[in-house]
Amino acid sequence: MATVTLISDAEATPEVRAVFDDIRATRGSDFINNFWRALAHDPALLSATWQRLKSVMGPGTLDPLTKELIYIAVSVTNGCEYCAHSHTAAARAKGMTPAQHGELLSVIGMASQTNALATALQVPVDEVFKV
Amino acid sequence: MATVTLISDAEATPEVRAVFDDIRATRGSDFINNFWRALAHDPALLSATWQRLKSVMGPGTLDPLTKELIYIAVSVTNGCEYCAHSHTAAARAKGMTPAQHGELLSVIGMASQTNALATALQVPVDEVFKV
Amino acid sequence: MATVTLISDAEATPEVRAVFDDIRATRGSDFINNFWRALAHDPALLSATWQRLKSVMGPGTLDPLTKELIYIAVSVTNGCEYCAHSHTAAARAKGMTPAQHGELLSVIGMASQTNALATALQVPVDEVFKV
Amino acid sequence: MATVTLISDAEATPEVRAVFDDIRATRGSDFINNFWRALAHDPALLSATWQRLKSVMGPGTLDPLTKELIYIAVSVTNGCEYCAHSHTAAARAKGMTPAQHGELLSVIGMASQTNALATALQVPVDEVFKV
Amino acid sequence: MATVTLISDAEATPEVRAVFDDIRATRGSDFINNFWRALAHDPALLSATWQRLKSVMGPGTLDPLTKELIYIAVSVTNGCEYCAHSHTAAARAKGMTPAQHGELLSVIGMASQTNALATALQVPVDEVFKV
Amino acid sequence: MATVTLISDAEATPEVRAVFDDIRATRGSDFINNFWRALAHDPALLSATWQRLKSVMGPGTLDPLTKELIYIAVSVTNGCEYCAHSHTAAARAKGMTPAQHGELLSVIGMASQTNALATALQVPVDEVFKV
Repeated sequence: MATVTLISDAEATPEVRAVFDDIRATRGSDFINNFWRALAHDPALLSATWQRLKSVMGPGTLDPLTKELIYIAVSVTNGCEYCAHSHTAAARAKGMTPAQHGELLSVIGMASQTNALATALQVPVDEVFKV
Repeated sequence: MATVTLISDAEATPEVRAVFDDIRATRGSDFINNFWRALAHDPALLSATWQRLKSVMGPGTLDPLTKELIYIAVSVTNGCEYCAHSHTAAARAKGMTPAQHGELLSVIGMASQTNALATALQVPVDEVFKV
Repeated sequence: MATVTLISDAEATPEVRAVFDDIRATRGSDFINNFWRALAHDPALLSATWQRLKSVMGPGTLDPLTKELIYIAVSVTNGCEYCAHSHTAAARAKGMTPAQHGELLSVIGMASQTNALATALQVPVDEVFKV
Repeated sequence: MATVTLISDAEATPEVRAVFDDIRATRGSDFINNFWRALAHDPALLSATWQRLKSVMGPGTLDPLTKELIYIAVSVTNGCEYCAHSHTAAARAKGMTPAQHGELLSVIGMASQTNALATALQVPVDEVFKV
Repeated sequence: MATVTLISDAEATPEVRAVFDDIRATRGSDFINNFWRALAHDPALLSATWQRLKSVMGPGTLDPLTKELIYIAVSVTNGCEYCAHSHTAAARAKGMTPAQHGELLSVIGMASQTNALATALQVPVDEVFKV
Repeated sequence: MATVTLISDAEATPEVRAVFDDIRATRGSDFINNFWRALAHDPALLSATWQRLKSVMGPGTLDPLTKELIYIAVSVTNGCEYCAHSHTAAARAKGMTPAQHGELLSVIGMASQTNALATALQVPVDEVFKV
């Protein structure tokens, strides 16, 4: 249950409709997931978020699956339930294998542990790490 | 300034020395960074952490650089100063280019933003994302 | 499903009852939300939390709606599902408009993004910012 | 010490220079704080971040000081040292009084406490809070 | 609804079965909770996590209940719903009384509040606290 | 460098002075650590925080050292540098041994890891854990 209603296609204003259309065209799918339908209460925020996401997750020097794995790592660390689900699904759609998923989880678990230890110990940054 | 002293080679117990030796052999470098010197107050914790790290970050279906990028993503989200420095340095040593660094930061920034929005909106998980 | 049962009016001890009565009188409503019913297992914690909340959220130099927006910002960043719901409802009851809600979300999203970037980059604090 | 160098005016590419110029014009000040100088290694990320920040923090239904207080609340909860400093300075520049600062801290402290309690108790969301 | 299926006893590989058997033997109970059934998709991660957990939570200089209280404190602060439930149940099984639970919550609430205040104020570490 | 100045004894108002006196009397020491000197800009917040801390950390069903260990666990997970230092020092003053410190760190590291895994996997809460 969201803190706002989910905007249906029928309720979409022309500005929202344009973003929904671009999401559909970009993804080659008619499906609009709930995140965008909740965000659609503020067309400017919806549009800015989608435009930036499309740019950031698009072609670059990191391949699309690597970007999704990084996205999952941040989402899990932030404790975002919706994001853990949606980006795990997205990573699978981009080819993440069960073995890769297991390694992703292993790195996330390892980093979470050493992050806590380094913080508890307040380890000073080594001189060689400084630029 | 750490919450414990940093264990020098001279202060290392045989058990700690064995871990330091394995770190040096594995990395092909004489350098032991401060994290391990702080952790060395508890040889069992030092050994368990290093053994697990060596295994998790070793060869697998994800390449070493991808694992470092995921490690940075978790470390940044957890706000770990030491880890942000040490793993950014490690990623560079493994070949991260400035362009890849910029894309990593862009994905981390994007995920942080949509994580917050999804949490603020308490967006319900779409049925299609459920396994 | 809470990790404790929710204390009904019939189960309330006199000390709990006194807090419930004060919540009702302060808010001009008979409704006691689940947070207080869960907290009521420890009357001292219930009382201290309510007394402090009443004082902090009461009249001051910041208006009540501004305080609720700040409360939402913290709650979202902490990933608290219950708090996101209860304080969004409270902000609406205090007059938050859809436009203000959209701007609140935009600022939360922006801050989440730049927080992550500043942490990833470990940007040193400018001298002019220091008091 | 940042994980990247800080880009001076002399090192700025034309694209970076254009953003720096707009920051100066928008703020009516020659000063460019370190955050932007660190971000300038990736001109596209620098530009996108600045453009969005300028839009989000600009005129709206929430006044500029309220937006800064919300920004501080998120930054503190995320544990961002740089952001706590820079946005506290920004709030003062926009007129935050010591009394308002004290109330901001009081709300942040209160929310942090009840967020933790609600999470520990896993309080179920009241039906009346659902839209 | 997990992001993976839960591995039943019938689906368990021999390696997973061996871990499940050790969990049962160690706990003196036939029950395997969902965490291990989700983790069982990666037998190596399952095994490493269980072996380390058994060692860390086993006999030592801190008694088992104290270790559970610390585990709850971390889990709540990380906003982990599953962990808040499972470790509160575990603490009760190890003898946590309602009064101890109330004090645990009070300390968690207090620490959350002063953590936020210290971060907002960026309080410099006192010289006497440094080792 | 704090975001506010640190209030010296000479600058303390009578209300602040009364709190400082009570801190000294309660602790049997003339030393006032920086946290209280920063908080002293808002006497009401200073007084409320100290009074609550004194009550929460005082005698109860959990011993003082256990409360400090819980406080450290929360502080580390929240990434609070000042708090990690001040409460590690406090725990030592209350008798924490190096072996106990090592076990505390081990539990914090373990919990951080399994918290991340449970969140990544979105493990559903077992029925038996529900009250």
